[in-house]
Amino acid sequence: MNYRLIIYTLGWVLSFEAVCMILPMVCGFIYGEKEALIFASCILICLIIGRLFISFSPKNKVMYSKEGFVSVALSWLFISIFGALPFIFSGAIPNIFDAFFETVSGFTTTGASVLSNVEILPKSIIFWRSFSHWIGGMGVIVLLVAVLPLSGGGNFHMIKAESTGPSVSKLVPKVKQTALILYGIYVVMTITQIVILLFCNMNLFEALTTTFGTAGTGGFGIRNDSFTGFSDSAQITVTIFMILFGIDFSVYYFIFVKRMFKTGVTSEAKTYLGIIIATIALISYNCRGMYESIWENLKHTAFQVGSIITTTGYTTADYNLWPEFSKAILVLLMIIGACAGSTGGGIKVSRIMILLKSIVKEIKIAAHPKSVHKLTMNGRTLQHETVRAVNVYMMAYLIIFAFSVIIISRDGYDFTTNFTGVLATLNNIGPGLGTVGPTGNFGMYSNLSKFVLSMGMLAGRLELFPLLVLFSPYTWKK
Amino acid sequence: MNYRLIIYTLGWVLSFEAVCMILPMVCGFIYGEKEALIFASCILICLIIGRLFISFSPKNKVMYSKEGFVSVALSWLFISIFGALPFIFSGAIPNIFDAFFETVSGFTTTGASVLSNVEILPKSIIFWRSFSHWIGGMGVIVLLVAVLPLSGGGNFHMIKAESTGPSVSKLVPKVKQTALILYGIYVVMTITQIVILLFCNMNLFEALTTTFGTAGTGGFGIRNDSFTGFSDSAQITVTIFMILFGIDFSVYYFIFVKRMFKTGVTSEAKTYLGIIIATIALISYNCRGMYESIWENLKHTAFQVGSIITTTGYTTADYNLWPEFSKAILVLLMIIGACAGSTGGGIKVSRIMILLKSIVKEIKIAAHPKSVHKLTMNGRTLQHETVRAVNVYMMAYLIIFAFSVIIISRDGYDFTTNFTGVLATLNNIGPGLGTVGPTGNFGMYSNLSKFVLSMGMLAGRLELFPLLVLFSPYTWKK
Repeated sequence: MNYRLIIYTLGWVLSFEAVCMILPMVCGFIYGEKEALIFASCILICLIIGRLFISFSPKNKVMYSKEGFVSVALSWLFISIFGALPFIFSGAIPNIFDAFFETVSGFTTTGASVLSNVEILPKSIIFWRSFSHWIGGMGVIVLLVAVLPLSGGGNFHMIKAESTGPSVSKLVPKVKQTALILYGIYVVMTITQIVILLFCNMNLFEALTTTFGTAGTGGFGIRNDSFTGFSDSAQITVTIFMILFGIDFSVYYFIFVKRMFKTGVTSEAKTYLGIIIATIALISYNCRGMYESIWENLKHTAFQVGSIITTTGYTTADYNLWPEFSKAILVLLMIIGACAGSTGGGIKVSRIMILLKSIVKEIKIAAHPKSVHKLTMNGRTLQHETVRAVNVYMMAYLIIFAFSVIIISRDGYDFTTNFTGVLATLNNIGPGLGTVGPTGNFGMYSNLSKFVLSMGMLAGRLELFPLLVLFSPYTWKK
Repeated sequence: MNYRLIIYTLGWVLSFEAVCMILPMVCGFIYGEKEALIFASCILICLIIGRLFISFSPKNKVMYSKEGFVSVALSWLFISIFGALPFIFSGAIPNIFDAFFETVSGFTTTGASVLSNVEILPKSIIFWRSFSHWIGGMGVIVLLVAVLPLSGGGNFHMIKAESTGPSVSKLVPKVKQTALILYGIYVVMTITQIVILLFCNMNLFEALTTTFGTAGTGGFGIRNDSFTGFSDSAQITVTIFMILFGIDFSVYYFIFVKRMFKTGVTSEAKTYLGIIIATIALISYNCRGMYESIWENLKHTAFQVGSIITTTGYTTADYNLWPEFSKAILVLLMIIGACAGSTGGGIKVSRIMILLKSIVKEIKIAAHPKSVHKLTMNGRTLQHETVRAVNVYMMAYLIIFAFSVIIISRDGYDFTTNFTGVLATLNNIGPGLGTVGPTGNFGMYSNLSKFVLSMGMLAGRLELFPLLVLFSPYTWKK
């Protein structure tokens, strides 16, 4: 294990976090809050430790698979621990388990909160909370690879470990350029949404924080009633952008490069949009009569469906009050999640598609044991390794899921709350059902449960393997 | 597709069911019930249709994989439909969806019931209900293969389709003899339990019906309070036999043949017993203070753990009232299930073990992409096909699970009830939590939900693939 390389990488991650904290500091100065000084001191801490770590600069900067996984896992742990400092120092969230939970929830773009009243928080703290979604959305490492002279080779291992979805391919031959293109698309879409929201009668603070939460598919609300109080036009804008940020970013690249809509949209994106349309239809039919008009019904249904499948977690309606059928569909959407290569969480549509295809294949083999079948996606044959990795991912997911539910059930809350609470954190959604539903929060859980759920959020964002590799004794054996 | 061969097999299955109905008919005569005549007429119906089907005797009696799956799936559908006739004709369960549900629940050894009051039923009907557990436990086809001149070859395809677990191996080179040995063990263990229960102050009727439910890991109670009212000695006997019937029957064969305990017990059986001991310890600690003495606590915990992990479903305590932590562990046991090759349901301990092993392997590969690892079980390398089939099985399981929950949630019951209701039927357990808990039943669901759950029970008992193959368009393409 190349320890120096890992520490060196962590140094850059902390320096990067220091840079990120400049924005909430500025926000604090603008609103004349004393928290600005707290951010200034946190920046200093990150810079000093970051500088110290970078001084470990290794001779061999080639990153192998193992170091890649470990670096990414530790980077996310470090950025969450140091990102929690402003919450603790400012007294906004004094308990360290709470502060860690909230920060992890931010960076992993979960949006699950321990706070029942966010409106009393200082603006700069709210800003940092929402900004962490934006940072975590596209990924910390992706940005580092794009802009920094991070290492001599093997960056792709880290990108792979951080990216979402069953398989990662480069858009262009160079890793660095691929990362730059992805961040470029991210920035352009973010700015577009901010501008549109400003036209929807939002002020700049609201537009920025709302967009951070949408772009990262995070979902931290800036008001206690999440998104219920905003105008129709703002709600519709957010609905559309949530859905857009849930699509594989390479789709936008290919549409842009090939200037063709038809060839650019992958079968995953089509399936994803199909699921959204189908579930909006089912739920709005099931919820007919609950709203004053069809328009109101569709507006709320589309917002909630978009928010849940992309794992954003904003709400405009308390779906805890919806019929059981609609709730069951929402739980299914929570499990499925968005597209691979997007900022959204969950298992990912492409994984579900691969699983369905392999089931069909197995049925065919059962009927005709000697027949040969190949799994294809977007016209290309799926690698055996991809299919195997998807299967194993699902199993690891289920086992982590089961044990998380068992541990947090020690706190005595009901099964629906515990089950959807784990689902909402592991899949980086935010709200669940029951006590952790749209009007509730995770504050009532014990410190142990909060820690388990925090690790679940990290595991979910990094798609399990970086954390599993980090904690596997095999990794650390000489 | 060799249609004649399938119809011919179904003919034997129906004839076999007619023979099975002789016992409840005799029971009816002994108790002087008019239902005896109903059984007599049902026997006649089965015999006539069976005879008709057998007359389709095909020239080519070689059973291929596809025919094997389809025959087994149809056999179980037919035996359930015809097995429901006595319930309908006697008026015990007049609704055909209810009667089908109850019969499927019997043959699949689920033990989920639509009845709230079983004590008012005629003895012969209760006998048939419990006896269906015993018939379904070891399998209909296994018995046919053992005793009948069923087909010219390829019987093993049917045995595979009906047996439980990820891979099926013959105990002895001949399929027929393997089937005979398995049934021999089943009969000996059944008789042993009946005799012991007679010593526990049960009358013959109680001992027989209780043993049928234990041996098949079924769980239909003969009293409204399930097993609560019986003596301590009877409860302990049933606890032990439930656990024994949840072990791979080949273990008993190997212990008997090799006369050695050490080499006979597989790693699956050891893990299974380890899980039982660990969960009894955890739950009894969590439930301390709920019972008058440690003895009472252990007795109830052991009974419930044994009943749930083996998917029997007898109860002596309303675990709906247990703490959430204990309930979460029970849900986990419901998912895991018993050993492969036993009469128990669920995903099976060996599948969970294979999944865990493949996760560990994948973590190792993630850390060292070029390293080579083999999965082993009981010292032997696992076939690649077995591992793949286990993974695909799990995925198919999850998808069927999710859609079942969504469909039955249309009836409006709470998430816990729907989730554990599907779990309890798909895994052939019987009772779930909430409204379908130990003191409840499935009677409140709509006909559609009952039908979906009935098909789930069949899918669970046959481990998905026979039903998936039956309903796959690919199977029926020329």
